[in-house]
Amino acid sequence: MVKRFFLLFFQLAITNWLFAQDKNTDEIKRIASEVMTNSGAYENLRYLTKKIGPRLSGSANAQKAVEATARMMKEAGADTVYLQPCMVPHWVRGAKETGFIQVTNGTKYPLNLTALGNSVGTDAAGIRSKVIEVRSMEELHLLGEKGVKGNIVFFNIPMNPAYIKTFRAYSESGIGRRSGPSQAAKYGAIGVMVRSLASNVDEYPHTGATAYNDSFPKIPAVAISTKDAEWLSSQLKNRIALNAYFKTNCRMLPDVLSYNVVGEIRGTEYPKEIITVGGHLDSWDICEGAHDDGAGCVQSIEVLRAFKKLGIQPKRTVRAVMFMNEENGLRGGLAYFKAAKDNNEQHIFALESDAGGFTPRGFGFDVSDETMNKVLQWKPLFFEYGIYDFAKGGGGADISPLKQLGTALAGLSPDSQRYFDVHHAASDTFESVSKRELDLGALNMAALIWLVSEYGL
Amino acid sequence: MVKRFFLLFFQLAITNWLFAQDKNTDEIKRIASEVMTNSGAYENLRYLTKKIGPRLSGSANAQKAVEATARMMKEAGADTVYLQPCMVPHWVRGAKETGFIQVTNGTKYPLNLTALGNSVGTDAAGIRSKVIEVRSMEELHLLGEKGVKGNIVFFNIPMNPAYIKTFRAYSESGIGRRSGPSQAAKYGAIGVMVRSLASNVDEYPHTGATAYNDSFPKIPAVAISTKDAEWLSSQLKNRIALNAYFKTNCRMLPDVLSYNVVGEIRGTEYPKEIITVGGHLDSWDICEGAHDDGAGCVQSIEVLRAFKKLGIQPKRTVRAVMFMNEENGLRGGLAYFKAAKDNNEQHIFALESDAGGFTPRGFGFDVSDETMNKVLQWKPLFFEYGIYDFAKGGGGADISPLKQLGTALAGLSPDSQRYFDVHHAASDTFESVSKRELDLGALNMAALIWLVSEYGL
Repeated sequence: MVKRFFLLFFQLAITNWLFAQDKNTDEIKRIASEVMTNSGAYENLRYLTKKIGPRLSGSANAQKAVEATARMMKEAGADTVYLQPCMVPHWVRGAKETGFIQVTNGTKYPLNLTALGNSVGTDAAGIRSKVIEVRSMEELHLLGEKGVKGNIVFFNIPMNPAYIKTFRAYSESGIGRRSGPSQAAKYGAIGVMVRSLASNVDEYPHTGATAYNDSFPKIPAVAISTKDAEWLSSQLKNRIALNAYFKTNCRMLPDVLSYNVVGEIRGTEYPKEIITVGGHLDSWDICEGAHDDGAGCVQSIEVLRAFKKLGIQPKRTVRAVMFMNEENGLRGGLAYFKAAKDNNEQHIFALESDAGGFTPRGFGFDVSDETMNKVLQWKPLFFEYGIYDFAKGGGGADISPLKQLGTALAGLSPDSQRYFDVHHAASDTFESVSKRELDLGALNMAALIWLVSEYGL
Repeated sequence: MVKRFFLLFFQLAITNWLFAQDKNTDEIKRIASEVMTNSGAYENLRYLTKKIGPRLSGSANAQKAVEATARMMKEAGADTVYLQPCMVPHWVRGAKETGFIQVTNGTKYPLNLTALGNSVGTDAAGIRSKVIEVRSMEELHLLGEKGVKGNIVFFNIPMNPAYIKTFRAYSESGIGRRSGPSQAAKYGAIGVMVRSLASNVDEYPHTGATAYNDSFPKIPAVAISTKDAEWLSSQLKNRIALNAYFKTNCRMLPDVLSYNVVGEIRGTEYPKEIITVGGHLDSWDICEGAHDDGAGCVQSIEVLRAFKKLGIQPKRTVRAVMFMNEENGLRGGLAYFKAAKDNNEQHIFALESDAGGFTPRGFGFDVSDETMNKVLQWKPLFFEYGIYDFAKGGGGADISPLKQLGTALAGLSPDSQRYFDVHHAASDTFESVSKRELDLGALNMAALIWLVSEYGL
């Protein structure tokens, strides 16, 4: 009797499981078909990049982007759309930078260069000195004050092409941009040029934030294009010394008021359990910010649109969030966290898309082992849509503070081969985004958000 | 004793297997590092596309491409490089096509159009008639002679955006281009316009071969851009009738002599077992043929270069083959097969890359179940390099005749999202190829070829 009961129970469990699997497969297919056929992500991205354009924190364009995405979320059908205030840094580039290498007494080699984000400008005369090339931070330390004082340090640290995951190369080689200026200043350098953090060799300089260490003087810092970096390095091999000149006009102004934009579909059964899906609204001032991170914003809005269009009423509350100031401060992410904490909100899951609008390959999860085992059961549902890798480790800068609340975090992992060709450079344009790749990312995000909204974590 | 013997045997087998796995992992890592760091594929592709350009069978450029790739294979270090003759069709476009839609008596809407490959031209006056739109072959059959006779049929069959694998949509929607002209001629149509087989909406017309059925008159046929197709379809909804005009100047000339280009590294242990890796050298005349299929050619040459550079001496003979005339005849593939058969060559494996130079996702295998089980054991070796899908079914047009010899066939499966944005259109340029994505394909091809050369099939 007991045996028969167990058999029956087992059969019921299996039947339920199969039924759930079928239901999940069908619902994700419905989402996929809707997104691939009717997505609004691409046209929203066109608006953000072509109608608005660069939208660095504190700029007029950033405010336009706040208003535009609030409108887009209303159009997508969000129940509630609101702005969440935060004070943001206001760094301005000023007039376009200039710079060159003095090749001989008579001729100059002009540099494609861009001031590093948050960096101080030169004085009106610019700076001019001997260029000292280093290929690593260790080389800088070996040179010390004797080799560096009074000079301009050129951090020529290429991204390692042999790393298949380009983020690994970015992380390793990024040390020059991130801490190079302060480390060079420690030894008395008067300025820094870094090789752009790019995976290709072309003429675009790539900006990005540098972080000064308050213990040392703040010296001006620029990135030069990879093509110029290769040229300069080859020239330095042939000569005893070369002088560089550059002039930057950037400065940090007082903080200004800005906003995260939040759009919500309230959960029907567990409205207090909040699921966040987002990207960041700000971009560097020299590019349209299509991959970084217009893509993540419009994909997150598309999750809402697809749900509403399909009549999906999520059991848990789903919020699309456009975070402000990821690039040079993270104030939006911190404000979102603070509000969540102050209001005792229950954030069960947050997903960020901030690795480009490229064809998706996986999700990275920063979750407990127990939660990981749960989400791994969903993995086969994604195979048909190009996602095969549910990896441990992931998330996104803007959602990272939520970890303190115990929130399960995840990040979309698109193919990374092309990302650093355009990242933080003028080549990060709308035209560099493929509509299908963008939509494929959005549908996989929508599918994951739907699963969490349906079953919790 | 027997038990102990088995245990020992088992331990030895495991040890060997582990040793082999380590060896394979290490060797593939060496190949990967070499290709990602020093690949010549991108510069070779630049030469094929920018220095030579379009290279349709029978053209002077096709001959230049034969000579250039023979040189590239020598530079890559092939032991032997030779040309394998084949007669190829010689279709020429003549002067650029023109065409328009008569909107009102006074105004004309000019069309972005291109004659379909192998199609006949109009006479000097061009053709002018009423446009009849059909959305499927069934609609054409329903209209029959009554609805079609004397008119221009407009096959407006979009690629289904909901299919994640774009080749599926291409295959389904391609019926209009492939057999539309003859099917329309059967009912008395005087010409055909097809919506370009493209996954995006833009102004580029996409050509491609049509196949006339000798039972019906050969009528002129063009492809119009997807943008024009959308516009035309919307116009036809609003009006009773619209007239179209087009003039094409293409014609088929007598066959001419051309060549496959073959570069070989002779096997050290089993030189008679031949492994082929290839792509096709010809491209449509309106594009640089970067993805289709310059990519497959330069990736195949890169396999040889990497082997030679690393001092890999394959146990079996490895041949890189640049096939001629895939686009409008397959004569190169057939000539390669015929030579293999006539010479009683033992072709154990052939791998083609002809789906674009995009980031790789898998290989498709057209092999026996037994062979499939063998190659599946290698699958984990590729995960680190972005390949996760070893699927049944695959190969390539040029190598397909080898199936008659029992050869195991395979095709590289790159991400397909962007392929049909550029396929057979002027937008298939060198600039649309990512160096890293191209090299990543090449390294995975080299790894698979190495495994087969080492262990056989």
